[in-house]
Amino acid sequence: MLIVGELINSSRRPIAEAIAARDKAYLQELAVKQVEAGAHIIDVNCGTSLAQEAAVMAWLVDIVQEVVDVPLCIDTPSPAAMEAGLAHHKGKAMINSITAERTRWEEVLPLVQRYKPSVIALLMDDGGMPATVEDRLRVAGRLVPALVDAGVPEEDIYLDPLVKPLGVGSTCGVEVLESTRILRQKYPQVHLICGLSNISYGLPERRLLNRAFMVMCLSVGMDAFILDPLDRPLMSLLAAAKAVAGKDDYCLEYIAAARAGKLVV
Amino acid sequence: MLIVGELINSSRRPIAEAIAARDKAYLQELAVKQVEAGAHIIDVNCGTSLAQEAAVMAWLVDIVQEVVDVPLCIDTPSPAAMEAGLAHHKGKAMINSITAERTRWEEVLPLVQRYKPSVIALLMDDGGMPATVEDRLRVAGRLVPALVDAGVPEEDIYLDPLVKPLGVGSTCGVEVLESTRILRQKYPQVHLICGLSNISYGLPERRLLNRAFMVMCLSVGMDAFILDPLDRPLMSLLAAAKAVAGKDDYCLEYIAAARAGKLVV
Repeated sequence: MLIVGELINSSRRPIAEAIAARDKAYLQELAVKQVEAGAHIIDVNCGTSLAQEAAVMAWLVDIVQEVVDVPLCIDTPSPAAMEAGLAHHKGKAMINSITAERTRWEEVLPLVQRYKPSVIALLMDDGGMPATVEDRLRVAGRLVPALVDAGVPEEDIYLDPLVKPLGVGSTCGVEVLESTRILRQKYPQVHLICGLSNISYGLPERRLLNRAFMVMCLSVGMDAFILDPLDRPLMSLLAAAKAVAGKDDYCLEYIAAARAGKLVV
Repeated sequence: MLIVGELINSSRRPIAEAIAARDKAYLQELAVKQVEAGAHIIDVNCGTSLAQEAAVMAWLVDIVQEVVDVPLCIDTPSPAAMEAGLAHHKGKAMINSITAERTRWEEVLPLVQRYKPSVIALLMDDGGMPATVEDRLRVAGRLVPALVDAGVPEEDIYLDPLVKPLGVGSTCGVEVLESTRILRQKYPQVHLICGLSNISYGLPERRLLNRAFMVMCLSVGMDAFILDPLDRPLMSLLAAAKAVAGKDDYCLEYIAAARAGKLVV
């Protein structure tokens, strides 16, 4: 199970302000806290920096890697910012993301081949966001072989089935769950990841919906999540979900977490 | 989704004491609280009353039905106590349980045919507790047609795949989930039920494990749970799970629960 800590993202106002002010201490503390809480990778996103995004991404990668040893996920729609982040990153990074959209594929693939990061691949193409399970399977059927042909090992591929809010349609969760179940069987070596919080966009008490969705995703074979690792009830439920889903032999991790007082009931 | 409130069970010490003292007010209040919290059926179990069990069950059914309008689940291994409970119950009851064990089947079936309750049918036979998914499917393949042949409508059948503690084996949860997924497809009209708390027996922070298991069970088609409806975080997560699993059109129930302040995050 791989946890990508999502908090250093400039779409969140305090982060945008900290980045604008180059508040290194604040951002470093947030990185350290996420790792201490169980994040295996720290997402860095400074999309609101606009024209300076590449320079800011390079700075962000530098200051976060000063304080944590885990890889960073260079999260940006800008190929220039992605390249700046990758060039400054020490060790194997992760990127968010490549897609099957023609332009995006052509811009990002050379960076993947040059820097060899783990790759989050969104299951969308020039037809836009996937509307059905079949859309997702079709795009995966193009992306996985194309990435492998380009030299990316299956273990470095993280397919993201793209979560749409339940407010858009009551079956948005089920579509992702069914896609995940099939993709897990079809690509046993490939990782499956999603951003949990999209499911609850626009609805009340969002964290409850995120938690329920996380448990269901895990049970059908999703093995990586982009989430807030400081949400202790979420992380506690994740530990329980792993045990219940048979992914924690003899419940040893769960029992250890309980003994360490890490579980919030 | 059907909730059976589990609290009036003499295996819990305060209940055993209240029953021994014929503390009608305490037991009635517990029944009312469970219904107010969302239980659709109230379980009544007085197994510790031993020789007096039939008389105590009759009393329990009488006093609980004085204060709630929902059906009761007559929960006992004793055919005599089951008959006493059914004879005193007004309206359609539920029983817990019949099995494919020869003696149990022969003792309980006549009560089912006479009183026509909803029937919880445990997926076990004279071979004992089921050890695998296949065991459960095999027993269901005998029980469902036998009950239907005996005149029980499929909608009155609640199959219980029997949950064993994770402490017994790390795959105990997965077995139930996979059984449930297959049974849901094979018997679309039959209900699927389980007692959640068995999963966590002997482990720390049991309520977290029960919650995660409930969410997973719901996502594979379980549509009835025997649980503690006064566990507000559990009931809140249940509401979220229904929304995420596409069982709450437009999330209307979820939004209403949030507006009514019923959701604990």
